[in-house]
This record gives sequence, C-alpha cells and structure tokens, in this order.
Amino acid sequence: MREGKTKIVEEFGDDVILRFKDDITAGDGAKHDVMENKGSICCEVTARMMKYLNENGIYTMFLEYLPPNKLHARKLTMIPLEVIVRFKKAGSFIRRYGGTDGEDLPSPLVEFTYKNDELHDPLMCVEHLEVLGITTRQVACEIIEEARRSAILLKKFFDQNGFELWDIKFEYGLDQNGRVCLGDEISPDTMRLRRSGQIFDKDVYRKDLGNPIEKYEVVLELCRNISL
Amino acid sequence: MREGKTKIVEEFGDDVILRFKDDITAGDGAKHDVMENKGSICCEVTARMMKYLNENGIYTMFLEYLPPNKLHARKLTMIPLEVIVRFKKAGSFIRRYGGTDGEDLPSPLVEFTYKNDELHDPLMCVEHLEVLGITTRQVACEIIEEARRSAILLKKFFDQNGFELWDIKFEYGLDQNGRVCLGDEISPDTMRLRRSGQIFDKDVYRKDLGNPIEKYEVVLELCRNISL
Repeated sequence: MREGKTKIVEEFGDDVILRFKDDITAGDGAKHDVMENKGSICCEVTARMMKYLNENGIYTMFLEYLPPNKLHARKLTMIPLEVIVRFKKAGSFIRRYGGTDGEDLPSPLVEFTYKNDELHDPLMCVEHLEVLGITTRQVACEIIEEARRSAILLKKFFDQNGFELWDIKFEYGLDQNGRVCLGDEISPDTMRLRRSGQIFDKDVYRKDLGNPIEKYEVVLELCRNISL
Repeated sequence: MREGKTKIVEEFGDDVILRFKDDITAGDGAKHDVMENKGSICCEVTARMMKYLNENGIYTMFLEYLPPNKLHARKLTMIPLEVIVRFKKAGSFIRRYGGTDGEDLPSPLVEFTYKNDELHDPLMCVEHLEVLGITTRQVACEIIEEARRSAILLKKFFDQNGFELWDIKFEYGLDQNGRVCLGDEISPDTMRLRRSGQIFDKDVYRKDLGNPIEKYEVVLELCRNISL
C-alpha cells in the first residue's frame, strides 16, 4: 500500500485499486484541507474521462469504476513527472515567463516538471530527463505525443459543452510490458476549466474563492454524459 | 550605441566595435563592482578563444582584436537567450535539480535560459522558444549543435592545459544573411574553470573568495598560447 497526498494505491493481483481521499492540497502541500465527497467526485470524473480517452484510442490505466471512490486500474511503474499541456497562459507559466492569465498560446505546449516538493517541481526539458536518468528520449517523445492527443480530445469534449480547458496535468507510467500508459487522475484538481469567466477547478481552492466542491459537482454532472 | 552591464556596442559600417567595460556583476545585477583591467582581460580572452573556435570550424562574430579592450566584430541580431553547456553539475543546475558541486553529467547538457533579469533568466525548452516566438525550432537545433561543438573544443583546449571546464555560457545572433553566429563573450565571466580545486572564474567574485582579477590573469596567460 502506498499513500500519497490525495490517493491510496493498493496492489490487487496483477492490478491495483486506487482509493481517492477527501484531501485537497495546494502549494506543494503547504495548504491542506479535507472536504466531504471530494474523493468520490474526483474518482468518478477520472473514471469517465479515462473511459472517454480509452474509447478514443488513448491507452490509460482505467479498467473499472468501483463506486463511490475507488478505481480498478492497471499496475504501472510511475515516472516521477508532471506532464502539463497548456492551451492558454496561466499559473506557473506566467510566474516563469510573464504574460496575462488566459492569453492564448499559438499551439498546445507540452511541459515536464519533476515531481519533487522539496525542489518545487522544477521544469525539465527532454535533455534533463535523459542526463538525470528519469526516462529515455524515446519514452519522453511518446509521452509528449500521448499528452498532446489526450489534451486535445478533452478540450474538444469540454468545448462541446461550453467549457474552456486552459491547461491540464497528466502523469504517466510504464505497464508490465514497458508500454507508456496514462495513470493518476483527470479531474478539476488537475486542470484549469472555465465557463463565462467562472472557475470550475482547483484555482477556487488555491485562491480562496468559495466552496470548490460545488464547482466540482458541476464538472461531474457534465462527465455523466460519458457512459461507463 | 547600446550599453549593457559589461559591454558597449557601437555600429561601425557593416560591422560593430565591442568595448569591454571594467564592470563585474552577479545575481541579475544585484552585485556590482568596477575592477581595473577586467575589461581588457575579458576582451583579449574572448578574442583568442573565438580565434581558436574560428580555426576549428565554428562561425563566430570575431574579426579583429583592437587592444586593449575592443573587438571588431560582425554585426548580429542577437537572440535573447543564454545557452549553457554543462559538463558538471554546478550553480543554477543544482539549485533547480539538486546534486553535488562538480558532479559529472553523463553527457554534455545544453540548456536555454531567457535573458530577462526581471523574470530571473527562466529555463526554456525548445517548445517554449517556439510558442513564445523567440526563435524557430530549426535555429534552436542549430544553436544546440554549435554550442555543444564549441564547448567540447574549449574543454579540449583547457584539458590540455590542466584545467577543467565545468560549464560555459554562450550567446548567439543571426548575421545579415540570417546565419547563426556565436556572439557576446567567452571569458572567465562566462564559464566555470577549475584547476586542482582552485577557482579561476566569476565564482571567485560571486562567492567573495578574493581578487578575481588575479585568477582572470592566469586564464589570459593560458589563452596567449593561441596566436591572434
């Protein structure tokens, strides 16, 4: 059993069971709260989003949703990277390079950051992944292509429902055959999602803009258009 | 005429004259001093290092040394990037990713940082250069190859003279035909150079370890093996 900030992973034969906790955190864990139903909402959103990606030719860990807050999933050896796909400037991009919140990027940008709270998740280029032995150039390039395709599919889903996907964070692992597979979570915790200037993602929590759960429930309702 | 922190550039027909100042700065300009002869030492080292690179098939701005502290050089449209080639971990690499000062990297690493004191010279990957319109992927890839080749040539020169080149920073521009050309400066200000645990570069100044000029003079003497 491994316990992270928001999930518990238990091995289950050749697969795993992921249990989503009610914890919400921000700022490398500096901010932390527990919110009722948060785990079940993020779990069900992840299940339905990954189902949608599976049906569109993306290889994900998702096998089965076990209500209310568990996923039956493929066992992966996780790569310690956050893979961010940006359609618009926001958050750490603006802190690094300047620009205006919500400004369009000319094409989707894929970024890697190293999952390390102590180092504050530093940006890495493909060359850093190689010299630091985090992964090979070939795997990095596969991840870039998979992340870009997945983000574009999700953007299309949200576009059709009147929402704007600004950016999204993915995490990848290798399955037992060494194949790159999308793992972790896809939820309002891991994306920036806006509609008519309103925020439907973890920025509600990061910026103390009210009760994030009410907004997360709107996203869940939308995802229920995807059958399981 | 354009004046930077350590150099003044004057147009001179189709070419430029670079005048090296006696200023030395560190920490995005937060630390600043004036040291006699610093400009002439860095100018002559740059002249001789660029001459050596020219003779080894690298295209640089260098045309002629005008003693004591001026260079006659090609006019370039500079790209606002610092291009760092690292053979060992040090400085901002360690601040970003951890590791030990002087630890070997398995292969030379080429990094881009955006020249912007206000943003503290943030790291950029090739993808950032493209989406932010700083340069094209093709020019970025040419720069990576040129920087790697140049750093390896300089490392060889220093190796033969008992010195270790840990890392080096280059700046590039496009000449009047749009060709990538090495510009700026190659001096103890722009590299980490060590011999038997002793420091012969700007870290002497950054870390307040004595008079940097004495060390810079040792490097100049070494470079005088290269004829002009």
